[in-house]
Amino acid sequence: MTPAQSYAKVRAHTEQICKPLKVEDYAMQPFSFGSPAKWHLAHTSWFFETFILKEHVKDYQIYDEKFPFYFNSYYQTLGERQQRDQRAWLTRPTVDEVYSYRTHIDEAMHQFLNGDLTEEIIGLLTIGLQHEQQHQELLLTDLKIGFSVQPFDVVYDTHPMIPDGEVLSNSSPEWIEVDAGLYEIGHDGDGFAFDNEYTRHKVYLESYQISNTPVTTGEFIEFIEAGGYENFKYWHDEAWHWLQDEGIKLPLYWEKDGDKYSQFTLSGRIPITGKEIMQHVSYYEAAAFAAWKGCRLPTEAEWEAANHMFSWGVVWEWTNSAYLPYPGYKKPEGAVGEYNGKFMVNQMVLRGSSIATSPNHSRPTYRNFFHTNLRWQFSGIRLAKDA
Amino acid sequence: MTPAQSYAKVRAHTEQICKPLKVEDYAMQPFSFGSPAKWHLAHTSWFFETFILKEHVKDYQIYDEKFPFYFNSYYQTLGERQQRDQRAWLTRPTVDEVYSYRTHIDEAMHQFLNGDLTEEIIGLLTIGLQHEQQHQELLLTDLKIGFSVQPFDVVYDTHPMIPDGEVLSNSSPEWIEVDAGLYEIGHDGDGFAFDNEYTRHKVYLESYQISNTPVTTGEFIEFIEAGGYENFKYWHDEAWHWLQDEGIKLPLYWEKDGDKYSQFTLSGRIPITGKEIMQHVSYYEAAAFAAWKGCRLPTEAEWEAANHMFSWGVVWEWTNSAYLPYPGYKKPEGAVGEYNGKFMVNQMVLRGSSIATSPNHSRPTYRNFFHTNLRWQFSGIRLAKDA
Amino acid sequence: MTPAQSYAKVRAHTEQICKPLKVEDYAMQPFSFGSPAKWHLAHTSWFFETFILKEHVKDYQIYDEKFPFYFNSYYQTLGERQQRDQRAWLTRPTVDEVYSYRTHIDEAMHQFLNGDLTEEIIGLLTIGLQHEQQHQELLLTDLKIGFSVQPFDVVYDTHPMIPDGEVLSNSSPEWIEVDAGLYEIGHDGDGFAFDNEYTRHKVYLESYQISNTPVTTGEFIEFIEAGGYENFKYWHDEAWHWLQDEGIKLPLYWEKDGDKYSQFTLSGRIPITGKEIMQHVSYYEAAAFAAWKGCRLPTEAEWEAANHMFSWGVVWEWTNSAYLPYPGYKKPEGAVGEYNGKFMVNQMVLRGSSIATSPNHSRPTYRNFFHTNLRWQFSGIRLAKDA
Amino acid sequence: MTPAQSYAKVRAHTEQICKPLKVEDYAMQPFSFGSPAKWHLAHTSWFFETFILKEHVKDYQIYDEKFPFYFNSYYQTLGERQQRDQRAWLTRPTVDEVYSYRTHIDEAMHQFLNGDLTEEIIGLLTIGLQHEQQHQELLLTDLKIGFSVQPFDVVYDTHPMIPDGEVLSNSSPEWIEVDAGLYEIGHDGDGFAFDNEYTRHKVYLESYQISNTPVTTGEFIEFIEAGGYENFKYWHDEAWHWLQDEGIKLPLYWEKDGDKYSQFTLSGRIPITGKEIMQHVSYYEAAAFAAWKGCRLPTEAEWEAANHMFSWGVVWEWTNSAYLPYPGYKKPEGAVGEYNGKFMVNQMVLRGSSIATSPNHSRPTYRNFFHTNLRWQFSGIRLAKDA
Repeated sequence: MTPAQSYAKVRAHTEQICKPLKVEDYAMQPFSFGSPAKWHLAHTSWFFETFILKEHVKDYQIYDEKFPFYFNSYYQTLGERQQRDQRAWLTRPTVDEVYSYRTHIDEAMHQFLNGDLTEEIIGLLTIGLQHEQQHQELLLTDLKIGFSVQPFDVVYDTHPMIPDGEVLSNSSPEWIEVDAGLYEIGHDGDGFAFDNEYTRHKVYLESYQISNTPVTTGEFIEFIEAGGYENFKYWHDEAWHWLQDEGIKLPLYWEKDGDKYSQFTLSGRIPITGKEIMQHVSYYEAAAFAAWKGCRLPTEAEWEAANHMFSWGVVWEWTNSAYLPYPGYKKPEGAVGEYNGKFMVNQMVLRGSSIATSPNHSRPTYRNFFHTNLRWQFSGIRLAKDA
Repeated sequence: MTPAQSYAKVRAHTEQICKPLKVEDYAMQPFSFGSPAKWHLAHTSWFFETFILKEHVKDYQIYDEKFPFYFNSYYQTLGERQQRDQRAWLTRPTVDEVYSYRTHIDEAMHQFLNGDLTEEIIGLLTIGLQHEQQHQELLLTDLKIGFSVQPFDVVYDTHPMIPDGEVLSNSSPEWIEVDAGLYEIGHDGDGFAFDNEYTRHKVYLESYQISNTPVTTGEFIEFIEAGGYENFKYWHDEAWHWLQDEGIKLPLYWEKDGDKYSQFTLSGRIPITGKEIMQHVSYYEAAAFAAWKGCRLPTEAEWEAANHMFSWGVVWEWTNSAYLPYPGYKKPEGAVGEYNGKFMVNQMVLRGSSIATSPNHSRPTYRNFFHTNLRWQFSGIRLAKDA
Repeated sequence: MTPAQSYAKVRAHTEQICKPLKVEDYAMQPFSFGSPAKWHLAHTSWFFETFILKEHVKDYQIYDEKFPFYFNSYYQTLGERQQRDQRAWLTRPTVDEVYSYRTHIDEAMHQFLNGDLTEEIIGLLTIGLQHEQQHQELLLTDLKIGFSVQPFDVVYDTHPMIPDGEVLSNSSPEWIEVDAGLYEIGHDGDGFAFDNEYTRHKVYLESYQISNTPVTTGEFIEFIEAGGYENFKYWHDEAWHWLQDEGIKLPLYWEKDGDKYSQFTLSGRIPITGKEIMQHVSYYEAAAFAAWKGCRLPTEAEWEAANHMFSWGVVWEWTNSAYLPYPGYKKPEGAVGEYNGKFMVNQMVLRGSSIATSPNHSRPTYRNFFHTNLRWQFSGIRLAKDA
Repeated sequence: MTPAQSYAKVRAHTEQICKPLKVEDYAMQPFSFGSPAKWHLAHTSWFFETFILKEHVKDYQIYDEKFPFYFNSYYQTLGERQQRDQRAWLTRPTVDEVYSYRTHIDEAMHQFLNGDLTEEIIGLLTIGLQHEQQHQELLLTDLKIGFSVQPFDVVYDTHPMIPDGEVLSNSSPEWIEVDAGLYEIGHDGDGFAFDNEYTRHKVYLESYQISNTPVTTGEFIEFIEAGGYENFKYWHDEAWHWLQDEGIKLPLYWEKDGDKYSQFTLSGRIPITGKEIMQHVSYYEAAAFAAWKGCRLPTEAEWEAANHMFSWGVVWEWTNSAYLPYPGYKKPEGAVGEYNGKFMVNQMVLRGSSIATSPNHSRPTYRNFFHTNLRWQFSGIRLAKDA
């Protein structure tokens, strides 16, 4: 594919995700950790305008001088911005106006991408497309939680583009043995990677075992029914307080009616059979489940060193590694330096990718990260233990 | 006018208010004390459906069984309801669907009102229309605050239906003298009144003076420039804490640029000339201003006893009376009893009416009430003092 | 009694109240609405030092320049002060040092009061003593709540100076009829009164009935057992939210064990027999109880107009009057003006006095006031109804 | 030393720390992260009573059945306990009673320790003593912050037992080079160590440089004066919000008056000369300082691998390692298992020890840990960088 074709394909996918929405649905922001769909649509366009068009197209005129304020996410280098938890306050620009903005950016980008492109431009384009793909996944998870708080089951799509809640585990759990020794992890520079995947470096691992398959809903139900949510000894101290403060007794989106469990999905509420791969757990829940099983979560190095020996890609998998810089990590200069480095504290790493991850947006070195209490991503559990 | 004509006229006025809105604007709810326009449109229809159609039309089918949950405001008698500060979470029903609901209710009401109507029905109809008129005023004030928090001046209407911020005072302030003696206040039963206006009763008033005209922006600017917002001695103790906690230094919607003051209105930001009647002050600010002037606010009895001697109707006027039951007040039975009585604590009474009050919705006995810190209504100040 | 004798007597009573305390108990401040005993002891002394010694004794030297900061309560006129909810942070001056401060003030006052005293001085002295008496009652109620939150029943005194929880009702409830007409309320200037009891003025009252006796624990238990705390229709809207938010199902200090009720008192936990006069209810609970009985609370004018026809003095009695200025009320100049006027918003008036009120500190015109959710005072209920 | 002698020595040291206190000072708890001195005194005794006397002394009678509730810190296994942020509510037992409790425990322990002791008992004794030493350091830091919030400089001791704020750096900063390679970290089992120091394991380190000396106040002043607290680019995103929310512009205990800096210490406020070793910084500040210097914090493995090449022991040194289990870590069974493991999330590791650390309570493998915003410990900065 040419750069222009890649660009067109990624951009179309974003709009495809929004296809089932009514105008009103574009404004959903029930929780401050998520954003309205309208904002995602505009922010991703602003990203191309700010980092490519404005910098590299001669005489380019900013589409609307107000948009940088509206649609900057967190780049302090780039000036003031709408407060995150007040993004839903913005009723203007309207959804139509945001689509016009996208069209304008797409036309300008199309023209630009059909010219001569330097390495640097290709690099920026790639970041822009990777960035938009990250927002595609967030769009799906933000929409899911937005629909879930409607008082009656309002459905994103009766046939959504991803098999939410429907991927069954296709193997019974077995332990993969990994020998102690020196391993290399991190990106080797072949193909795109984010700054946080560098530098590739050696780690020494003691021997360990890692499961060939993520935990299923059936296994998690055993934990629930064994009183897992009521027994402090499986939980971190702050996790236990979180359970009490929030009154949490089930995974996100789950309900229990008699002895039947169901979950809310992008196509509405569906029964849980026990065979599905578990999704939407917090780090706290993942760690507690592992403790109850007498196991633990793998570190990210353990995960990466063994990833070729198991299949992954249905859910992001919580690791027991904090999100910290690799040896030799360098924060890039300028606004792009705010992309990853400033979040490297008090979050945990997730590895792999999920059914909501966009096509061609996963690799074994990818380091996703979230706060330990968050569960609205498609996040699941893979067990490990000492050998 | 026939009942059906009255109904049609009031209902049309609500929709008239929404004319300038984009679909997205119907969802504005930046603060939990206000509601989205979509909700107002639906709630007022639900009121007719619940109290008239459902009760008095044979075989009437509820339009949608989910709507009572969505659109009940605070009637506990009528069951569970959407939490007030989460009304903006509802993206469905859509604006179009809400208009369809209104149309359905209007057709059913039209048919019903063209039949034989008992006294009781006329009574319920009147309450429903008065109720809708109250929401018309709230619609305007909720939209005003919703537009005001957009980061750039987005305008409700360049030629809004009401002269927001533009009514000038047409008389210089003079004191009206009122003699001590027994007065009667409260509604005498001639025409409609809410339950809280009953029973008409005697009050003894000491002699007092009351201003012939509300306070202007120019007078309020004198207060500001005399350091009124920085001097605790004019303020109630809790008002002083409110000022510090919220960082308040100006009336709502005001900005000061150099020595120029401007205010945000339904038609955007406009300069303040000093001649306008002051609007959007809290009780706290009204009382502090009065204290600075060496005056006080009138009680509601003083206001009512003298109201025929001055003109009112531009702003709701804060009184120094707490919102409490009149002697002989009876809370009606059933859901209608939740209309007024349960709010009779920790609020202050405002008298008169404002430019945003709907036609034919004001009378000298009307008791409006709000919490002492709220300022998004068209609320102003009339001074009084002991004789 | 000479002024010096009055002074000595009141001061001794304060120390009498603290007799049963250990040094540690002087620091109790579990809730920000109360204050540590040490603070009360010092603050009352500071009051005499600030308003009398410093102003009227030639060459008087402030005992310690830091004490005004420590022990000023809320007088903004008198400068910065320790934040109210951080009074317990102060471990110094120690209890011993505070007693030394009291001794110093007492000696200086004694010498001063044995000289020639002007009317003005007598007036200031009287305010100082009345003020100290108010703090005596607060001391008892602050100590009561401080002991109540100790995890095991720690007792203020096995034979406390007041019969906490033990005053039985000595008459069966009867209605006193009061005719409609003009009444005078407020203080006539004979003897001491606070500024808020002025000016005496006429009020017109419709005919009403008022109970000859306060509500008993037995009557309140009927309310509880009829589901009073679970039925929204008896409660103000904000009271209902208060119940839910705080999880309140019983009056303060009450516990229910099987079908037995008990209450925590200054002498520990004791059974409730049903005969005791009800104490420690909030305005919310008082109003809800009255609504359940088909009655209402009296206004303060109704209470005062009839007070000679019933006995009172066991509990402060909630009225349905907001704490607002009387006609002709003038806020005094200077710091003393902060005593009452600045609190005249969003509080309700209580009338009478309680078992914890100091001797000679009650009169029929006394206006006590608290926020509607507070219950740690000895506050009870007297019913009224329309005639 | 015999076990009984060790016990006596450690216990005496705790009481030594409390020597300068007035009774009132034992109740200080201005912030919920700290505890009152009285509580520390009792809790450490409860620890010996619970884990040794109660379990291993035949017919031992619990001193007071209420004390476990009062003085259990966070052991869920051992039942309900006083809420942490309400420890200051407890005025009883009094300070005297707590000392009596200590005496009782000491006598029982003395008798017990003079008998035959198994390995297990020695192990428990050692944990109890190490535990008490940890509380000795907390006592000093809790007292320091407690005295610091007194409105006027109240002093713990004019000649405190530790040289708070007075240790000067005795070497100019130089980089120590460390080669890449496999290192071993963690405790080898020789002498006491906490569970979190196990198991000793290999780590591969890239080559790096680490400073021979901690950062001084002079270096930190350069950061301040270069606008370090006002420039987002040195800070983690959540650190930047922390600065804004808390209004932080200086390290804890510092004040700036003109161009002079001073710090509050256990002996009161003293000038800062620029030569002192920097103390009382949060992880956020440590990381921001390092970023401003173009360096970084060492990981705990880097720190431990090089610790023999530099001197440490004045301040705890923040590392860039999250507090997570080592490979092979096993949480002990029972209550003791709550000691460390349940806190292994969202905290960062500090290495070394400080002037407030008790004698014989430090070793190169010790893993201290605190939340990233806390600064009331004697915590400082050592720089590292990639080779």
